[in-house]
Amino acid sequence: MPSHNIATSQKRVAVLSPVAWRTPPRQYGAWETVASNVTEGLVARGWDVTLFATRDSVTRAQLHAVVDKGYEEDSNVNPKVAEYLHISEVFEGAGDFDLIHSHYDFMALTYMRLVKTPVLTTVHGFSSPKIMPVYQKYSDGYFVSISESDRASGLNYLATVYNGIDLSLYPFQESGGDDLIFLGRIHPDKGVHLAIEVACLSGRRLIIAGIIQDQAYFQKQVEPHIDAQNVCYIGPVGVAGKNELFARGCALLHLNTIPERFGLVLAEANAAGVPVIAMDLGSCREVIKHGQTGFLVNNVIESVEAVERIPEIDRRACLNRVQQHFSIETMVDGYERVYSMIFDLEAKRRP
Amino acid sequence: MPSHNIATSQKRVAVLSPVAWRTPPRQYGAWETVASNVTEGLVARGWDVTLFATRDSVTRAQLHAVVDKGYEEDSNVNPKVAEYLHISEVFEGAGDFDLIHSHYDFMALTYMRLVKTPVLTTVHGFSSPKIMPVYQKYSDGYFVSISESDRASGLNYLATVYNGIDLSLYPFQESGGDDLIFLGRIHPDKGVHLAIEVACLSGRRLIIAGIIQDQAYFQKQVEPHIDAQNVCYIGPVGVAGKNELFARGCALLHLNTIPERFGLVLAEANAAGVPVIAMDLGSCREVIKHGQTGFLVNNVIESVEAVERIPEIDRRACLNRVQQHFSIETMVDGYERVYSMIFDLEAKRRP
Repeated sequence: MPSHNIATSQKRVAVLSPVAWRTPPRQYGAWETVASNVTEGLVARGWDVTLFATRDSVTRAQLHAVVDKGYEEDSNVNPKVAEYLHISEVFEGAGDFDLIHSHYDFMALTYMRLVKTPVLTTVHGFSSPKIMPVYQKYSDGYFVSISESDRASGLNYLATVYNGIDLSLYPFQESGGDDLIFLGRIHPDKGVHLAIEVACLSGRRLIIAGIIQDQAYFQKQVEPHIDAQNVCYIGPVGVAGKNELFARGCALLHLNTIPERFGLVLAEANAAGVPVIAMDLGSCREVIKHGQTGFLVNNVIESVEAVERIPEIDRRACLNRVQQHFSIETMVDGYERVYSMIFDLEAKRRP
Repeated sequence: MPSHNIATSQKRVAVLSPVAWRTPPRQYGAWETVASNVTEGLVARGWDVTLFATRDSVTRAQLHAVVDKGYEEDSNVNPKVAEYLHISEVFEGAGDFDLIHSHYDFMALTYMRLVKTPVLTTVHGFSSPKIMPVYQKYSDGYFVSISESDRASGLNYLATVYNGIDLSLYPFQESGGDDLIFLGRIHPDKGVHLAIEVACLSGRRLIIAGIIQDQAYFQKQVEPHIDAQNVCYIGPVGVAGKNELFARGCALLHLNTIPERFGLVLAEANAAGVPVIAMDLGSCREVIKHGQTGFLVNNVIESVEAVERIPEIDRRACLNRVQQHFSIETMVDGYERVYSMIFDLEAKRRP
């Protein structure tokens, strides 16, 4: 355990998780996954944490909920109503906390100046250029980026803290199978169509798992290739399903077409010992060490070549890198340093 | 002018208008119309008012804007981003005001408890049962209803203040024409199809004006009847267009199928001397005096009978009733009384 310069027991932290899904999510939901991992990691180290999340969330922290279920999981929940009620709730209780750690999108920023409690925002992604005016207005807040590549200019970043995964969920597997794996949202951004192409050219089976976020894309560019033999689609999977996939996989194909912000699944696959072939866009080169935990590629041809070179990768090296850089412990170390900075800055600001 | 028990010059009021449209709107936009009328009415009486609205708004108050144009008027404006930036802005400046008068929807309520300045919310309508949890949470706020009929149980209503219109915009016309008029959103709630039926049965021309809010409804239930002779659709109209319509009209048909919340257009028509035939739902019986300023009906047959009885209506009586109950002056009287109540209540709360 690292040394702490904060008397953790004296500080009260509110973690604001999104309410699109349960925290942690049952299947898809990267932001809720990270918010959960931060929360549980802090609790394990003795921090006094209150998690603001859906009422069906699972946590060892104190749970504060005003929304019963994730709005993506229950059509009775109105997203706009849920968001306003949920976000305002943590700010109304701001006096009870020494720090609000927001994993919410830009919306939470707009309450920040109305409370005295400092607010740290982990930016999990800029969903659209249209939201940037909000970040610009509140650029003097405290921000953390989840990769060096996913940064907007002008924001007051205190650090990059890589997302950490719960390694116990993805046990290391000494050997894998022969299949290629795609694990992610079915959306053009994620390059499912490229993974299909690579699998065909490599003469290997591709197993696709994930929620269909773009139905038209699925119908046009994915579904026609599905044949239960060479290209299979198994729908969204939870942790158990991911581990089954990792057992069958020789490599994870992550051929994103836009810059990746972090890529949790890359770390999850590596933790299980599965090498990753990732498009060299955005954060992928920060998560995957080329030639050591997988390969960074620029196109389909390079991907096919990378599939041939999979045997060069030492599966244990994949795990080692995750343990070192992308574990909950490493992430919580990072956030403890950031919290410390904030408490120091606030103490100077309000002597 | 009524007597004031408030030293208006010492009190600073922020009026929060929506940013769907400009304030006042060019054509459609009832909430922005009322927010504008309240603002200009207060300014005319010497109040220190800051209007929070789109940057292209027109006002004699101080204008505070962070959104360039209404999100319904400019597709470059992201509604969610605009709303969060706009609403938070007034609350961040709360210390500069003695009262925030919100004409916004439920969203503004969620910032209310983070500031000391009292917030009065004029509820212009409950758009969906799904937003009610927000009103329930903040039910101890200060609320005004715009009609006796449009009230939710449990809210701390201080008064009903009827919407007031700018009578100078709709000059009285001694005589009208022979046409029937429909003026409103093209939406099933507004009963355009019923107006068409009544016009056909009455053997009178119907002129329809308004934005098409429900395209499918327009195509199925309105467009097939349009023939430029008996049923005309002229699109949305501004003030000048409304007055032209009022000149041609023997009556306004307002056969809403759900309870009306207030019905600005009823008062506008009456101001111009045009009788109104209105479905007896919601606030219509508060705005229209049966047999005096128009007729309250329950179905198409009664509407057709009412058209026959139009000559019984004294057009000047229509104007008189608007002058008495639905003018800007009457509305501002009402709000001054409510402001006074709030200042008294706040003084007792914080001695």
